[in-house]
Amino acid sequence: MSLYESGLVLLSGGQDSTTCLAWALTQFKSVFALGFSYGQRHHIELQQAQKIADLARVPFHILTLDFFSIPNALTHDIPIDHSPGQLPSTFVPGRNLFFLSTAAVFAYQHHISHLITGVCETDYSGYPDCRSAFISSMQDTLNLAMDYAFKIHTPLMHLSKADTVRLMAKLGNMDWYAQSHTCYEGKRPACGKCPACLLRLKGFQEAGYKDPLPYQTMM
Amino acid sequence: MSLYESGLVLLSGGQDSTTCLAWALTQFKSVFALGFSYGQRHHIELQQAQKIADLARVPFHILTLDFFSIPNALTHDIPIDHSPGQLPSTFVPGRNLFFLSTAAVFAYQHHISHLITGVCETDYSGYPDCRSAFISSMQDTLNLAMDYAFKIHTPLMHLSKADTVRLMAKLGNMDWYAQSHTCYEGKRPACGKCPACLLRLKGFQEAGYKDPLPYQTMM
Repeated sequence: MSLYESGLVLLSGGQDSTTCLAWALTQFKSVFALGFSYGQRHHIELQQAQKIADLARVPFHILTLDFFSIPNALTHDIPIDHSPGQLPSTFVPGRNLFFLSTAAVFAYQHHISHLITGVCETDYSGYPDCRSAFISSMQDTLNLAMDYAFKIHTPLMHLSKADTVRLMAKLGNMDWYAQSHTCYEGKRPACGKCPACLLRLKGFQEAGYKDPLPYQTMM
Repeated sequence: MSLYESGLVLLSGGQDSTTCLAWALTQFKSVFALGFSYGQRHHIELQQAQKIADLARVPFHILTLDFFSIPNALTHDIPIDHSPGQLPSTFVPGRNLFFLSTAAVFAYQHHISHLITGVCETDYSGYPDCRSAFISSMQDTLNLAMDYAFKIHTPLMHLSKADTVRLMAKLGNMDWYAQSHTCYEGKRPACGKCPACLLRLKGFQEAGYKDPLPYQTMM
């Protein structure tokens, strides 16, 4: 890794990609952030991503991915369900495939070769396109597709939520988390009750830090 | 390969994908065709693709890929240039990456596991995402992205244009070529003078067959 090259962070406005942005600033001389408007129910994510990019003083660009509709709980009003042994209803087939492919073309056009994404295989969800094996294969495919030496960085791949909080504390940007969006209900202050809020709060508790994000009820 | 499974042919309306469609009908019990509207200059390609799908009696679905603009000679009015040692100006970074990814999600949603594409590495162009190494890596990536056993078939990968014509003659659907579109100028009858028309005509000449496509001037 070189401090003299540019990195492009896939910034959703969530806790993980916010941590990745802080990490990238310690690794690359120039950092850019890229968001996707793909019909997600909660546009607040991208508004918060812009605020986080502003805190980090990096350019933030939003690309629209509206090329086809994938009915699922993130883009439509389908109840969030996560039965054991089944993929959660928030699963979009191949979502990271499209995010990374699009980010790679954007990076290619801007002469950037490092892509940073907050995917993580240690979490509860079991999305196939968050695994290390997928990322490794995706990197090979992107390099072959464009004859370009992309490197995909996944600093959170083997971290627990608590580890991610500890990493952010070490990076010294814990205050950025006040702007990051996690709540599945799309609420700000966050609901504190949905599975995403509960998972986030558990990570802070385990790491021994207080979440700076405002919640509707005192935790 | 099984006659009892379904295959999805990426059908552009050109000579190669038309041949793939004829090939797929000999390999799979059910065949479906998929086209992409991605801002190509000549919409005539998709009109011809529909006619070819009708001849083959297969359902044809068009997906729109307008998620970002890639300035190049196929979508914009840039002069077609192919200097030796350089990628041609018709190169869209990662185009087959998006076509195959999108086709895979469509196939996943329709319980189809075989994808058929007319990419070919023996031709003149040198597009990186037409090579066998890319297709093999792409197949791995798609399987990992969705935990689904996709198989990408490339029956023309190592065929010359003349070989492709011979294959179509053997498959007995040479008349479909009268509907296939090749001309870079977007003309029908075809101009017979642009690099694409000249390459097509050379293939027929080498194979010893007459192209059933109407041309503006007698060849």
